[in-house]
Amino acid sequence: MMAISSLVWHCPFQYIWTISRLATRCQRKPLSIWTRAATQSRIKKKATEPLKTLVLVPSLQGSISHTAKRSLHTSQLHRQEVMLTSERYGVERLPFAHISDSNLTFFEHLLPGRVITDAEELKPFNVDWLKSVRGCSTVLLKPRTTMEVSQILKYCNEKNLAVNPQGGNTGLVGGSVPVFDEIILSTALMNQIISFDNVSGILICQAGCILENLNQYLEPMDFVMPLDLGAKGSCHIGGNVATNAGGLRLLRYGSLRGTVLGLEVVLADGSILNCLASLRKDNTGYDLKQLFIGSEGTLGIVTAVSILCPRKPHAVNLAFLGCPGFCQVLRTFTVCKGMLGEILSAYEFMDNECMKLVERHLKLTNPVAESPFYVLIETSGSNSTHDEEKLSHFLEHVMGSDLVVDGTLASEDKKIKALWALRERITEALTCDGVVYKYDISLPVEKLYDLVTDMRIRLSTAAKNVVGYGHLGDGNLHLNVTAESYSHSLLDAIEPYVYEWILQYHGSISAEHGLGFKKKHYIHYSKPKEAVLLMQQFKIMLDPKGILNPYKTLPSKAV
Amino acid sequence: MMAISSLVWHCPFQYIWTISRLATRCQRKPLSIWTRAATQSRIKKKATEPLKTLVLVPSLQGSISHTAKRSLHTSQLHRQEVMLTSERYGVERLPFAHISDSNLTFFEHLLPGRVITDAEELKPFNVDWLKSVRGCSTVLLKPRTTMEVSQILKYCNEKNLAVNPQGGNTGLVGGSVPVFDEIILSTALMNQIISFDNVSGILICQAGCILENLNQYLEPMDFVMPLDLGAKGSCHIGGNVATNAGGLRLLRYGSLRGTVLGLEVVLADGSILNCLASLRKDNTGYDLKQLFIGSEGTLGIVTAVSILCPRKPHAVNLAFLGCPGFCQVLRTFTVCKGMLGEILSAYEFMDNECMKLVERHLKLTNPVAESPFYVLIETSGSNSTHDEEKLSHFLEHVMGSDLVVDGTLASEDKKIKALWALRERITEALTCDGVVYKYDISLPVEKLYDLVTDMRIRLSTAAKNVVGYGHLGDGNLHLNVTAESYSHSLLDAIEPYVYEWILQYHGSISAEHGLGFKKKHYIHYSKPKEAVLLMQQFKIMLDPKGILNPYKTLPSKAV
Repeated sequence: MMAISSLVWHCPFQYIWTISRLATRCQRKPLSIWTRAATQSRIKKKATEPLKTLVLVPSLQGSISHTAKRSLHTSQLHRQEVMLTSERYGVERLPFAHISDSNLTFFEHLLPGRVITDAEELKPFNVDWLKSVRGCSTVLLKPRTTMEVSQILKYCNEKNLAVNPQGGNTGLVGGSVPVFDEIILSTALMNQIISFDNVSGILICQAGCILENLNQYLEPMDFVMPLDLGAKGSCHIGGNVATNAGGLRLLRYGSLRGTVLGLEVVLADGSILNCLASLRKDNTGYDLKQLFIGSEGTLGIVTAVSILCPRKPHAVNLAFLGCPGFCQVLRTFTVCKGMLGEILSAYEFMDNECMKLVERHLKLTNPVAESPFYVLIETSGSNSTHDEEKLSHFLEHVMGSDLVVDGTLASEDKKIKALWALRERITEALTCDGVVYKYDISLPVEKLYDLVTDMRIRLSTAAKNVVGYGHLGDGNLHLNVTAESYSHSLLDAIEPYVYEWILQYHGSISAEHGLGFKKKHYIHYSKPKEAVLLMQQFKIMLDPKGILNPYKTLPSKAV
Repeated sequence: MMAISSLVWHCPFQYIWTISRLATRCQRKPLSIWTRAATQSRIKKKATEPLKTLVLVPSLQGSISHTAKRSLHTSQLHRQEVMLTSERYGVERLPFAHISDSNLTFFEHLLPGRVITDAEELKPFNVDWLKSVRGCSTVLLKPRTTMEVSQILKYCNEKNLAVNPQGGNTGLVGGSVPVFDEIILSTALMNQIISFDNVSGILICQAGCILENLNQYLEPMDFVMPLDLGAKGSCHIGGNVATNAGGLRLLRYGSLRGTVLGLEVVLADGSILNCLASLRKDNTGYDLKQLFIGSEGTLGIVTAVSILCPRKPHAVNLAFLGCPGFCQVLRTFTVCKGMLGEILSAYEFMDNECMKLVERHLKLTNPVAESPFYVLIETSGSNSTHDEEKLSHFLEHVMGSDLVVDGTLASEDKKIKALWALRERITEALTCDGVVYKYDISLPVEKLYDLVTDMRIRLSTAAKNVVGYGHLGDGNLHLNVTAESYSHSLLDAIEPYVYEWILQYHGSISAEHGLGFKKKHYIHYSKPKEAVLLMQQFKIMLDPKGILNPYKTLPSKAV
């Protein structure tokens, strides 16, 4: 048995997210960006084709995405089977019923041709994107309507069958795949847009719509989705809501808790909770939908979403700056908020260790003088002249002070893309550096980098690299430790030290990734026992048999 | 017995809010604005003094506000006692225990000198601001700490004593005062700021801090609160959170569901739920705090709040435009969102009937050509030159089209104030027009004004005036019907017709005011029975004896 950790195994397909994200930042999808995929010898040509189709030929069908994913997974699995979660982590199966032939007959009658039982076809749905956990489900259901989801859950609840809801299967904490033989309920075919109001900007759609497809649908009408993730080419909006996805636009448009206006949810007993309001203001009783946002499919299955979409910004600029210390990174942020105000849309940071990794492994070039820290500032506004003028004044100010030692500004796509690559491809560079121990942490901004420094001293030569980067504007640090090979002793040196450190400064052990399967036992580092107890009471009230996404999010026993 | 309605009795003090709001919009508080209060013969000079003090001499003590309020209430009560809620609405008292001497001894021991039992002193805390409901509580408690609130609730829960939490007592639906003899738990002395981080903009404070005081605290540091209400001079931040207050800045900064980062809440049994995180991102388990936002004190008492504050905008501009029809009001909004984008901070509308009322009763002057509709557009940004240029381009565009027939632009305080007065003082003008039937409604924007038109046709000469105005940017309509005197038949002609109309278009019967005592029986017009049932289950789980703010928010029986 192995301790549940944040370790990520080397995955040759990790670049897919990075490329997708890059394409998005530049607001166009050049063919050339796929060169790397084409030259990646380990992927069969056939397997990469659907990926191109997905991104270059937008489709609201969603199924193409899954085919692409599946092909990739399959070729990966042929080489190296991921260890079963139950074996790796020594988890015991809860006393749910096992799938019987009569169950399958019921499902086939309900969803003709949409019940997958072929072992080979099921493989990619049993394994997470990071190839770190694997279940052994023998059946996957593809409902098209809320009523079908309702009938499935009503039946499963009666028969005591466990259900694993799955969107795009892009989660990073093992929340989206079964732990044992839970029935996988995929939202892949629930991909219809229900309505869009181009006065209010309110979009209503089914849960299985792929985030990028929704953006492509909105673009001609001059709107964008209020969230943007690396996984946008695969992730489903229902999954985004269920995991309260953060991402790159949070600094500008706020969290899903503000932008999601309504939800339709099917509860464990099959009852349909229709809170699909399309209203910005509604103070009639408790806001039930909030309980389902971020509950990772453990309280109900999100079947439709109503979301407020902002207008698409017409001018985008990017500044890349070198700072002499973390204190200056923080002070620059303060100045930036004051001088750029309403047009600031991203404030990201990375340390010099990250820069060295992207230079070494990806051959990217640092565009400014070498500095201990770098910040990437994005502005998005409605008037390019105004935005450039604001940015220029800001840059004059910070370059003329001791806050910034060097900087560069980009407004054309190609340079913007190159600058974003430095920040966005850190994940890829880390993967090339060896085995990676990943932590997604929220801390008060002034403490954000102290954890990296402390960890570097603590681990000393036991680690190859200890690096820190992230969404500084949101107080979100990505702490990564690399090593030549996996070692229990290194993991023991990191955990629970990292969680205790976070606890000390009232941070969060999961800023945006959720708890899923891997982090549920660490919840007490971020939430008091009264809160966990209350969460467990909600779970029991809404899902008394515990059939919804079992083994996830909450510890099974009191903490 | 009278039906619970949205009727508001004429209140000579209604202008207080208007004035406070005006002062706020102009970001200064001129002495001259108080002239009307001084010449208001019905208010004793002594009673108005503390009001001046409240606004002009900011204080974080909060007690001054309450004194001011109390004085006003007292002088009002001397003239006309408000009918008891239990009598007017024929409500039956639930079987809670009655206050005994031993209870009082316990409270006096716990809160020495902070237990109010004097009948005269209690009066203003028993009556709502609109003078529409009145309870008969005999005891008011003023805890200073969360621990004291915890001890009070633990005791009350054990002794089966009902509790009415009260902030600034500025609610409009009878949620903030007792219905019978519930113990009033006032947050007035819980007015300490706990911390402010001027890098992240995160403020943590006790629930009893007055909204305006918080703004005044933030101003020198160049920050503002993310919400702005007419009642800001009296309302407590804890009450704002408990009622999910909307207000004027929602269009720009989003709802409290996004800006409130953490809460500390005391549950009915006295246990303290500390979810007072100061993190923008935290995905560790269910977001419990959301359940308490907007629950109107029925699930727990908010004792402290962590809230994200935006930077103060340095440039504010205002445009006042006349539109030939509601269709043009909507199209202008679409153009406005595209051309003003990130600097748009308010988009309000009013019909010509509103304009006629402010002209007739308040002698205000329409600055543009008479039109069927008027819109008021506010921009807030970091660079006045840029903002004025954007506004000019926008105005050229709309004036050159058929969208706008006439318009005026203001950037200096005095003119801004005069323009805002036209929209802000509608409430006051309505009060002067007679008895007012008030409805606070959310509807899909394209349907927003149809309700006013329908109602005008339906009521015909039975009503004196039927007017519509509100926060169009938020889809929030304030529908008001005036008449010379109260009549049952007029009320019957409005209700339930108005609620059925809202139901038909999936609107909300309470956009921002909440349900409180007055609207709880109408919840099923905006929420399905499954949702109400779930809310009732939450209530039973969190407050099994129902001691917290009884008779409010949820209907006692299944709907």
